[in-house]
Amino acid sequence: MNAYDRTPVTVLGLGSMGAAVAGAFLDAGHPTTVWNRTAAKAAPLVERGAIQAATVAEAVAASPLTISVLTTFEDTRAALEPAGAALAGRALVTLNSGAPEGARRTAEWAAGHGARFLAGAIKNVPAAVGAPDTLLYYGGDKGVFADHEATLRVLGGDTVHLGEEPDLAALYEMSVGATLLPALVGFFHGAAGLRARGLEARSMVRFSVKWLEMIASILPVLAEQIDAGDHGDAFSSVNLFLAGADEEREFSRELGLDDAWMAPLHDLLRRAAEAGYGEHNISALTEVIKPKAA
Amino acid sequence: MNAYDRTPVTVLGLGSMGAAVAGAFLDAGHPTTVWNRTAAKAAPLVERGAIQAATVAEAVAASPLTISVLTTFEDTRAALEPAGAALAGRALVTLNSGAPEGARRTAEWAAGHGARFLAGAIKNVPAAVGAPDTLLYYGGDKGVFADHEATLRVLGGDTVHLGEEPDLAALYEMSVGATLLPALVGFFHGAAGLRARGLEARSMVRFSVKWLEMIASILPVLAEQIDAGDHGDAFSSVNLFLAGADEEREFSRELGLDDAWMAPLHDLLRRAAEAGYGEHNISALTEVIKPKAA
Ligand SMILES: NC(=O)c1ccc[n+]([C@@H]2O[C@H](COP(=O)([O-])OP(=O)(O)OC[C@H]3O[C@@H](n4cnc5c(N)ncnc54)[C@H](OP(=O)(O)O)[C@@H]3O)[C@@H](O)[C@H]2O)c1
Ligand SMILES: NC(=O)c1ccc[n+]([C@@H]2O[C@H](COP(=O)([O-])OP(=O)(O)OC[C@H]3O[C@@H](n4cnc5c(N)ncnc54)[C@H](OP(=O)(O)O)[C@@H]3O)[C@@H](O)[C@H]2O)c1
Repeated sequence: MNAYDRTPVTVLGLGSMGAAVAGAFLDAGHPTTVWNRTAAKAAPLVERGAIQAATVAEAVAASPLTISVLTTFEDTRAALEPAGAALAGRALVTLNSGAPEGARRTAEWAAGHGARFLAGAIKNVPAAVGAPDTLLYYGGDKGVFADHEATLRVLGGDTVHLGEEPDLAALYEMSVGATLLPALVGFFHGAAGLRARGLEARSMVRFSVKWLEMIASILPVLAEQIDAGDHGDAFSSVNLFLAGADEEREFSRELGLDDAWMAPLHDLLRRAAEAGYGEHNISALTEVIKPKAA
Repeated sequence: MNAYDRTPVTVLGLGSMGAAVAGAFLDAGHPTTVWNRTAAKAAPLVERGAIQAATVAEAVAASPLTISVLTTFEDTRAALEPAGAALAGRALVTLNSGAPEGARRTAEWAAGHGARFLAGAIKNVPAAVGAPDTLLYYGGDKGVFADHEATLRVLGGDTVHLGEEPDLAALYEMSVGATLLPALVGFFHGAAGLRARGLEARSMVRFSVKWLEMIASILPVLAEQIDAGDHGDAFSSVNLFLAGADEEREFSRELGLDDAWMAPLHDLLRRAAEAGYGEHNISALTEVIKPKAA
């Protein structure tokens, strides 16, 4: 198979992620046009066979499919503004992070320029781009996904269209991603505790990995309880976590750790207990977090 | 093999976890003596072949090995006080949660009664007791572990002696466990976000499971950076997370979620950036959490 069998692709933005995206298309034999605000960053990709466009309009005009990997939705709209006319009739796909509202605005903006639009998110690091297991999800124009699915799948074998609404990827990206920082901070807290005792953080990694597997294994049941709004079947009650909160404070005090970040998590437990969920499952915290009925 | 080949075991406390522990010993053919403050809870185990002791002293006297599965270390010492003399020369193993200090106190208390002591922790739910992959770790008297390793392994195939210090299991338990509540709250937050949009929490489970696997996969590198005290190789910088924090606030505002629990996590990011770690890897948050040098 030669390059003429592959859809030509344009990649805008050659930061860590954009460079990985462009590299994956080159590896897969797609004619690949690249553009970056700081032009010098294109050099390694040009060496690998990419065509460097002098302007963003030229870049967009080079392919039926443009994938934009800039920092934010605002950056994407700002950078693409001079390409306005070239966008008409072409497919635009974004792969930046951002809140759902930014995706909706960008969809309107793209529609205004006559572009067919898909907003996606890569749920992984640049090094994972192109791997069979790497997850990317998209929301927006189903036709764009259908037309270019094989091309998009070059970026990761687990490529999903969530639905027609352009903010779905952002919505799932933020919802799923909300676990990252708190989970890591929990790990850092534990690591700081071990180190305060003269032990190494690496000595807990194997246990922590197993613990994350355990957490993953209970998510289906927790999600069911959340969807049912019924947390009565308590395999880990709010009160059990409240008892654990005392132990956690004691642990931090004993080892001199700064546990300010934990206090509002413990507050959530208390608020759930006050709302009558003490003997309900921990999934009841969702009731405290969710929007208040007007 | 018949029951005479198995070490007789005494289990104190027949709550969710204690009942699972006693049940596993019965299933494995160990002569099993049980005691519970609320005596009626023993009935289902007696039906399965357990011997119910009338007093805690009688229970301890029945076996060379007593495993206590009460709520806290304080409860354990209080419940065992009347068994004082019977403890001499016997092995006592605790399987409750609690801060390291409670384990050290209980070790002293056990030594005062002439008992050999091991403090353990089950890193799983009652339903997992007895499974080949279930993790239990122990700290304390190496001889007790060596003498009774086969018996202890009945409770889980991944049974580890961490070292001679009696508070090691509590220390690892708290350190590893510190990820649970924050990770779950992150999941609940995302679930509340989806539901506020009329989507189901279960629709994100498959993505969240994958995300936890991704988090697990980066722990070894994070632990190395923490142990080295060098966070310079930034695959996910503090500043990148700070940009993400803005998106998270925007997401919560858009969907009406209560994100009070996130604010101090974002504060950690800011404090790390102020301390000069902005372009360092996210593992640098450990430097903000760890004890301040005096
Ligand atoms: N890196 C990851 O691990 C990862 C993982 C998943 C998702 N993402 C997401 O992928 C997106 C890109 O991330 P990255 O890691 O590649 O970031 P990065 O390395 O900082 O690169 C940012 C890119 O955006 C360009 N850019 C920013 N503002 C611009 C503007 N106003 N006009 C034109 N170009 C602009 C930059 O151009 P210059 O070179 O000229 O500055 C650069 O090409 C982000 O939304 C990020 O959240 C990243
Ligand atoms: N359940 C889990 O998922 C899980 C997982 C890992 C670790 N653990 C740990 O395992 C330990 C036991 O948990 P559990 O789930 O079995 O709790 P539980 O169902 O609440 O049972 C608590 C047990 O402790 C007894 N007890 C409490 N205070 C006592 C006292 N002062 N004197 C005598 N007996 C007393 C109770 O006796 P009564 O029946 O008379 O009240 C009961 O047998 C806890 O430390 C827990 O953190 C539990």
